[in-house]
Amino acid sequence: MTQLGSIAVLDRLAHVSMRREAPVLADRLAALDRWVRDDLVNLDRDLDAFSRSAKPLREGGRVVHAAANHLLDLKGKHLRPTCVALASKFGEGFTPRARSLAVAVELVHSATLLHDDVVDVAERRRGQPTACVVYGNAASIFAGDWLLVAALRKISASGIPGLLEQMLAVIDEMIAAESLQLERRGQMAGTREDYFTVAEGKTAALFRWAMIAGAKTAGLPVTGEAALDRFGLHLGVAFQAVDDELDFGTAEVTGKDPLADLREGKLTFPLVVALEREPTLRTEIEALLGEDEPPREALLKLANAVRATGALTATRALAEDRVKKALAELEELPAGSARDALVTVALASLERAS
Amino acid sequence: MTQLGSIAVLDRLAHVSMRREAPVLADRLAALDRWVRDDLVNLDRDLDAFSRSAKPLREGGRVVHAAANHLLDLKGKHLRPTCVALASKFGEGFTPRARSLAVAVELVHSATLLHDDVVDVAERRRGQPTACVVYGNAASIFAGDWLLVAALRKISASGIPGLLEQMLAVIDEMIAAESLQLERRGQMAGTREDYFTVAEGKTAALFRWAMIAGAKTAGLPVTGEAALDRFGLHLGVAFQAVDDELDFGTAEVTGKDPLADLREGKLTFPLVVALEREPTLRTEIEALLGEDEPPREALLKLANAVRATGALTATRALAEDRVKKALAELEELPAGSARDALVTVALASLERAS
Repeated sequence: MTQLGSIAVLDRLAHVSMRREAPVLADRLAALDRWVRDDLVNLDRDLDAFSRSAKPLREGGRVVHAAANHLLDLKGKHLRPTCVALASKFGEGFTPRARSLAVAVELVHSATLLHDDVVDVAERRRGQPTACVVYGNAASIFAGDWLLVAALRKISASGIPGLLEQMLAVIDEMIAAESLQLERRGQMAGTREDYFTVAEGKTAALFRWAMIAGAKTAGLPVTGEAALDRFGLHLGVAFQAVDDELDFGTAEVTGKDPLADLREGKLTFPLVVALEREPTLRTEIEALLGEDEPPREALLKLANAVRATGALTATRALAEDRVKKALAELEELPAGSARDALVTVALASLERAS
Repeated sequence: MTQLGSIAVLDRLAHVSMRREAPVLADRLAALDRWVRDDLVNLDRDLDAFSRSAKPLREGGRVVHAAANHLLDLKGKHLRPTCVALASKFGEGFTPRARSLAVAVELVHSATLLHDDVVDVAERRRGQPTACVVYGNAASIFAGDWLLVAALRKISASGIPGLLEQMLAVIDEMIAAESLQLERRGQMAGTREDYFTVAEGKTAALFRWAMIAGAKTAGLPVTGEAALDRFGLHLGVAFQAVDDELDFGTAEVTGKDPLADLREGKLTFPLVVALEREPTLRTEIEALLGEDEPPREALLKLANAVRATGALTATRALAEDRVKKALAELEELPAGSARDALVTVALASLERAS
């Protein structure tokens, strides 16, 4: 696996932007790419070094190590560590200490994916079979535990006051959100309030931490750190809304099962809106989800019915609104390349195809 | 559930001691009981308060909260928090800060049980159905994650330098041990070295941390803390050896499935010794474990074959040797009630029946 995950996402975003004839964004992404390429190469190198360095696990539990590396090797978009990198560049930049925090946030994210895949009985992730399919549930659960502890040790070693406690609070929020999602699963009874609790806890909380961690290594004043915290919140919710939209995309593009969230009865924004506007859909959805293997045609028909309510348009509007709010927060930060880069990331989050 | 777990274990131990006509130990346990009863009442109250106080989970993910409380309500022996309590009494005693660390060690232990039960597909724990049977795997996984994070937040809040980092190192060791156990499962290929890696990582590491945490709240000098650390190591291995012995007991006494460890292909000391002494047993065991539901009679026959090699006697000898080593470490500590209490716990660990 030689492709660099962090750089790949920029390439993909640039590609999408060109395709959608958004040359301005493409130019911005090219500039961002030049500006952070070295940092992201270093990040990839540190992540690879982490995978290879797991001595205690290599000696004993190769299967747990393999499960963790299976996920890490699939290389996600590295969006969260990229947030740490960009925020760190308001100060002395992506130093080894900032990089260790970037690695930590990716490890926490990976830990949650390993546990989520077991919980969701997910078969595919990032276009490949999930770790729990390849190595089993036991290895995936312990691999998640291992990555989580490794991340916390890195954060502790950074010696930045309060950062470990903030990560523990974030994980608490993530678990509460996962719990709420679990509770509402398949009930078709989620409100907008539930949706935002889940999106803020499951997705935005870790983006917020990434921005705060970067801000702290940059030595930003409290007002700057608070603005980046809120930037992370809005970016995270926008990211989740686009994710929800992509659930209606196809497996080829996203690497996930099509309509996977819908089939799992997960609370997505399109679903909440569709049920508000067309309550009669509830019976139809419940019947479909009651089946073990709902036929693909029935799922696509349902997707179209959801689309017909305007729910996807509403989801896009939510994402755009949150990106606007995120951009407004950046006004608090000093102008310059770091701020420009975050503007680009926020704009690009609306255009991603996976 | 009004019975106090910590006190119940002392009662049970006293009962066992009387039955085995060990009146000296019974007297010691009665004295220990009088000396720490108030502390253990406070511990039980704090653990109950923790269960009730989980606001974010109560609001959203009741099922995760319920899964965690299901396990906490079954009330284990509270041996690890009792270790914190007794070590703390070398100093100013079981203060609120020491109690919060005792609660933390029990929460970490409970978190590992919740994940283990999912990994082992265990149906019974402490004489009751496991949380994963009652509430599902998903709730058990998140409940374990939640208790772990809650424990780490408590340790962080104690403000004792290094203690959180030591707990993270312990959890790392526990995961490595679980991984090794997973790797060796059903292979019938474990060595004594593997066995001690698993026992030290899975069981002794947390006992060590409990002793260190108590020592730190007591303000013991470094030599005293190191002696208690080694006391915890030996006590933990002895505890695991007795646990292995009890796997050959009956479900009525231990509350676990009979021969559960053997059936799961877990590396226990009797099995390692039996296979050293009688290599022909390997084929028989592998055949039996290959079956989905091995008949009870065949399991009991196998247990007797293991017993006939003298493997249980060797396991008892291991436990006794480690208890002796644990007692020797206590010579480093100041004489008095705290030291007497730890002597009693070490002696009683050999006599427990569950």
